[in-house]
Amino acid sequence: MTRDAPTDNVERQAFYDAIEPENLRALWSVMGAIITPQPRSDCVPVKWGYTQVRERLIEAGALISAREAERRVLILENPGLRGTSKATTSLYCGVQCVMPGEVAPAHRHTQSALRFVLESEGGYTSVGGERTDMHYGDFVITPSWEWHDHGNTGDAPVFWLDGLDIPLVQFLDASFAEGYADERQPVTAPPGDTLARYGANMLPLDYARAAPTSPIFNYRYARSREALESLRARDEWDPCHGLKMRYVNPLDGGWAMPTIGACLQLLPEGFSTQPYRSTDATVFVGVEGRGRAAIEGHPYAWGPRDVFIVPSWHEVVHEATEDAVLFSYSDRPAQEKLGLWRERRGNR
Amino acid sequence: MTRDAPTDNVERQAFYDAIEPENLRALWSVMGAIITPQPRSDCVPVKWGYTQVRERLIEAGALISAREAERRVLILENPGLRGTSKATTSLYCGVQCVMPGEVAPAHRHTQSALRFVLESEGGYTSVGGERTDMHYGDFVITPSWEWHDHGNTGDAPVFWLDGLDIPLVQFLDASFAEGYADERQPVTAPPGDTLARYGANMLPLDYARAAPTSPIFNYRYARSREALESLRARDEWDPCHGLKMRYVNPLDGGWAMPTIGACLQLLPEGFSTQPYRSTDATVFVGVEGRGRAAIEGHPYAWGPRDVFIVPSWHEVVHEATEDAVLFSYSDRPAQEKLGLWRERRGNR
Amino acid sequence: MTRDAPTDNVERQAFYDAIEPENLRALWSVMGAIITPQPRSDCVPVKWGYTQVRERLIEAGALISAREAERRVLILENPGLRGTSKATTSLYCGVQCVMPGEVAPAHRHTQSALRFVLESEGGYTSVGGERTDMHYGDFVITPSWEWHDHGNTGDAPVFWLDGLDIPLVQFLDASFAEGYADERQPVTAPPGDTLARYGANMLPLDYARAAPTSPIFNYRYARSREALESLRARDEWDPCHGLKMRYVNPLDGGWAMPTIGACLQLLPEGFSTQPYRSTDATVFVGVEGRGRAAIEGHPYAWGPRDVFIVPSWHEVVHEATEDAVLFSYSDRPAQEKLGLWRERRGNR
Amino acid sequence: MTRDAPTDNVERQAFYDAIEPENLRALWSVMGAIITPQPRSDCVPVKWGYTQVRERLIEAGALISAREAERRVLILENPGLRGTSKATTSLYCGVQCVMPGEVAPAHRHTQSALRFVLESEGGYTSVGGERTDMHYGDFVITPSWEWHDHGNTGDAPVFWLDGLDIPLVQFLDASFAEGYADERQPVTAPPGDTLARYGANMLPLDYARAAPTSPIFNYRYARSREALESLRARDEWDPCHGLKMRYVNPLDGGWAMPTIGACLQLLPEGFSTQPYRSTDATVFVGVEGRGRAAIEGHPYAWGPRDVFIVPSWHEVVHEATEDAVLFSYSDRPAQEKLGLWRERRGNR
Repeated sequence: MTRDAPTDNVERQAFYDAIEPENLRALWSVMGAIITPQPRSDCVPVKWGYTQVRERLIEAGALISAREAERRVLILENPGLRGTSKATTSLYCGVQCVMPGEVAPAHRHTQSALRFVLESEGGYTSVGGERTDMHYGDFVITPSWEWHDHGNTGDAPVFWLDGLDIPLVQFLDASFAEGYADERQPVTAPPGDTLARYGANMLPLDYARAAPTSPIFNYRYARSREALESLRARDEWDPCHGLKMRYVNPLDGGWAMPTIGACLQLLPEGFSTQPYRSTDATVFVGVEGRGRAAIEGHPYAWGPRDVFIVPSWHEVVHEATEDAVLFSYSDRPAQEKLGLWRERRGNR
Repeated sequence: MTRDAPTDNVERQAFYDAIEPENLRALWSVMGAIITPQPRSDCVPVKWGYTQVRERLIEAGALISAREAERRVLILENPGLRGTSKATTSLYCGVQCVMPGEVAPAHRHTQSALRFVLESEGGYTSVGGERTDMHYGDFVITPSWEWHDHGNTGDAPVFWLDGLDIPLVQFLDASFAEGYADERQPVTAPPGDTLARYGANMLPLDYARAAPTSPIFNYRYARSREALESLRARDEWDPCHGLKMRYVNPLDGGWAMPTIGACLQLLPEGFSTQPYRSTDATVFVGVEGRGRAAIEGHPYAWGPRDVFIVPSWHEVVHEATEDAVLFSYSDRPAQEKLGLWRERRGNR
Repeated sequence: MTRDAPTDNVERQAFYDAIEPENLRALWSVMGAIITPQPRSDCVPVKWGYTQVRERLIEAGALISAREAERRVLILENPGLRGTSKATTSLYCGVQCVMPGEVAPAHRHTQSALRFVLESEGGYTSVGGERTDMHYGDFVITPSWEWHDHGNTGDAPVFWLDGLDIPLVQFLDASFAEGYADERQPVTAPPGDTLARYGANMLPLDYARAAPTSPIFNYRYARSREALESLRARDEWDPCHGLKMRYVNPLDGGWAMPTIGACLQLLPEGFSTQPYRSTDATVFVGVEGRGRAAIEGHPYAWGPRDVFIVPSWHEVVHEATEDAVLFSYSDRPAQEKLGLWRERRGNR
Repeated sequence: MTRDAPTDNVERQAFYDAIEPENLRALWSVMGAIITPQPRSDCVPVKWGYTQVRERLIEAGALISAREAERRVLILENPGLRGTSKATTSLYCGVQCVMPGEVAPAHRHTQSALRFVLESEGGYTSVGGERTDMHYGDFVITPSWEWHDHGNTGDAPVFWLDGLDIPLVQFLDASFAEGYADERQPVTAPPGDTLARYGANMLPLDYARAAPTSPIFNYRYARSREALESLRARDEWDPCHGLKMRYVNPLDGGWAMPTIGACLQLLPEGFSTQPYRSTDATVFVGVEGRGRAAIEGHPYAWGPRDVFIVPSWHEVVHEATEDAVLFSYSDRPAQEKLGLWRERRGNR
């Protein structure tokens, strides 16, 4: 790990060969590879332009129905993690398309999902008996093991980004899933119910909830955007993040999801951040304006709906040539709970 | 996931080929493999007899010094996870040997480690300036990012089992490690200091600790064993576990380590448990007596110091033909914090 | 405590007399009075009609300026607790009046205060450098040890109800207070700043706060009222409370203040609650409509801005002859933290 | 509060008289008395020599039986709080005596109680079906609402100090109490059961407990004393406290009781502390050696089993002319939970 690996010789090699059938392996021959001085990830920086992804989804719309696909999604697969369906080592990212009139049928799974809405006139998600309309920039959660289905009552295709903890759940061998008897769950709650109940800094007296996910499942963009603007009014810019806020579970003030942390961030025109690195590889999505992320010195220009990834412990510098807004998500909540999250600010 | 996967045809295959260079993949072609109805792990049940592992370590002692190896350890590698140095998908297991007079030099890493002592007359571990003697059955912790070195001042080789969260830290891209300037850290605390301070159900007034690991780093076997015996006196047998206790962090009552949960369990002569399954794949180590674990119906007989693994969601039934004690560890704390842990008791 | 007190006789009385100068007292002679089978409070049910209180405050306006009074407040003193300035055994209640152009000068104290606004066109409170306009029904907090001043920029007198934990802080001997150098603290934040920052179910990334009070200090009535209305839409009436919500600290989901719990509650026209009692004596304030509270069978009719008190462990039944809204506060958070809070629902 | 109180005049006095029948009082006339710049307590420093208290209890033994008294206790009543049965404003203190063969009959109450054992050969307390022998210096808890009875199977009278939160529970109007059907509750657990179970830094797997009090109910003096000695070995003396440890609830690392904090503290021969003051008035009990407490400059010499009180925000300096041990308790846990606890170290 911290010294040069021992040199192999004939006797040692013979020993390695002898013990392999016994399901034994010499730690000293692999220690440097599994306990590294710094994160040494196969995950690489990468960007997807939205135009191209959208075109491919339109093509996919002609090839397969939402019903047959169950979910018509193109996975954004990290080129350093080929064949794994992963965006980062622990998280999944895809873009979903629902055509007018289609339904993505109801199912549930232990994987937690977030949706960040990219285009929607008439898109909706139903969770726990409530149907929420989806609009550009909304942050929508489908909690672990909750029934959910999606649909499109409008005239144009609907698109959103899906962020899930599929690799994490797979890694922990904790995946459960099942389909719902019907295509759609019944709608039993009025629209906006959970936001009105849990989003007004009040809670029903004696309300308790065992699940670790926020009961709010649609954080409206207009409201989140306004919160950023209010921070701007006091000029408290974080040198590494600009104005960055996290979506919060009103029941405990923690992250809105147990495994995935999601944030919205404003970079004002002309702002350039200090270098920053952290152990949580992060998926960024452009929301407003245009900017440039320099990841370990390599520039990635982005505009609205583009997606790019900053791997673990890769230095990033953000620049905004106009007022710009980024959505992002990572596994920071998981790393924090496990005592593993680290960051380095500036050039130290 | 919940239905049959869509059938591929020529057009779809052409589409898959076209999008691959764009780092895109059709979710519907892989969904059933990544979101499974139940945990579908490559991790398999397996047992290592201690005699054989011990012999191999004695051989290794002739091939390489502790100093050159840094740690003279044989990894117990799960045969279903070949080439990964993993015991389960998320955890590592090895057996370490320190020869008389040797020192395993000081280093630190973000990976958390536990030691369960298998043979020791003169073995020791130093953590945070305190050196603790290691005796059979002791549960010793080296917390994340704490300097630690080991040695053997006795006349016979010392052996212990190492349990670490190496795969988990690797998966999260959060590995940091460094070597200490000297072979050994200086000893600044009297022996037994942390146990006396933090182990007597008292804490120094105004004591605070940021780290999520127990400040006790040697849970003596005699004391833990006595706690089991006191439970026995009230006959409160858990149908699935016998008498099972978890090692606790006195600062918060939680698990002793942030990522790994460790337990000691007594199965009385003639006891046979109800079937049990849970999502945390578990490494078991025989401590006293002899028993048999039926894992999905396949029997694994074990005696003192033998190691066996029950993968995620595999049904296990324990039987003890004489009074028997098992040590075990798993990633249950991580799964609980992430909202993913599940168990099923009995034949439901 | 649970039996008849021992009979006193001449020898015993002589003994009591002998030990008194030694600061000793026989427990058996007082045990029944200090450890009672049920709460046995001097606090009694009582109601104040707003019209009368308001008139008295107008009178007071002619007798003393806000500057001279520091706070022009009439304490609502419980008639069972005469001379103590208490509304309940642990909490204080008053009604404050600020005349046009007046300022209630800046000070701070360890006592936590809430304001429930009764009449205000131009009333304001400043806390932590932010000035908030006060409107009917707003729930405003001045946290422990924060500078605060009030004023009135309108043309009519402003009135609000003050709820403080003065008796509790006094009881614990933990009162600290000091005046500000100037009459008013400087305003450094834009209006609505804290609500925009902390009230939108988002938090600035890496925001931490040591204080146990909500960072939101004005919970607007319109928003709270709307939350109640959304509960009504799902018809989930609590048999003892109607629709009752508590004001929440967004940082942890707990009560908005560390010692005082505040709630807003909707009773629909014609609703009559089941009997209810709890150990937290409660101050109720009428907000909308009219209703009647039967406290241990004695009716108290109330309308907007009237105040009434339900002592600890007194049975209360609420009736609403029209849609009615009540604000209330009690020491429930304190009792919960100390493991002392109890309730009894129905006639059990 | 922070200025001179307004001068009363004839009109004002007439107003005060007029509003009194309306249960109103002018805040400005009392504000300085109820919101003080610093704690202004009626609680005064005081010491009780054990010899005298013991003699009085022997006398009481001739006047009343434990059965008739229910508890034969002399309350140590603070001379500044005459007639209130209080030691400090929020806590109670008494010394209890059980004669050979006597039983103090079983009852329960919401008040939490601690016992600090002063003399016992054969004294015992039963809680939750377990009987624990009491020895000098043991810290014994009877949690809120748990049945408990005491007895003496030895040949000499047994004495212990009782510390309860009677005033706090009374203040909050939350007292409940009841007698047990029989004089003694049945003993169903082996001696030492809870300590063995919960005191060894292990917990039964899946153990949960709703109550906020430690499941350990006898913290043995020998063990606590040894913990202090181990701190001494590292010479980490707190300038204001010497070596001071708090009794801990192993389930959460918090104080052993929800309302009362208890500590044991070692002052080495010749040690003199820095001045210290805090808002939690504290009851001290001498355990070993002799020392002197200077409270606001007035010296109180103490020896084994003597009791003295340091009121809120009174400066205390401890001196030990020989190795000395003090037990102490206060309402610090309550004040901390309510956000009210403050301390000042040194002469600032």
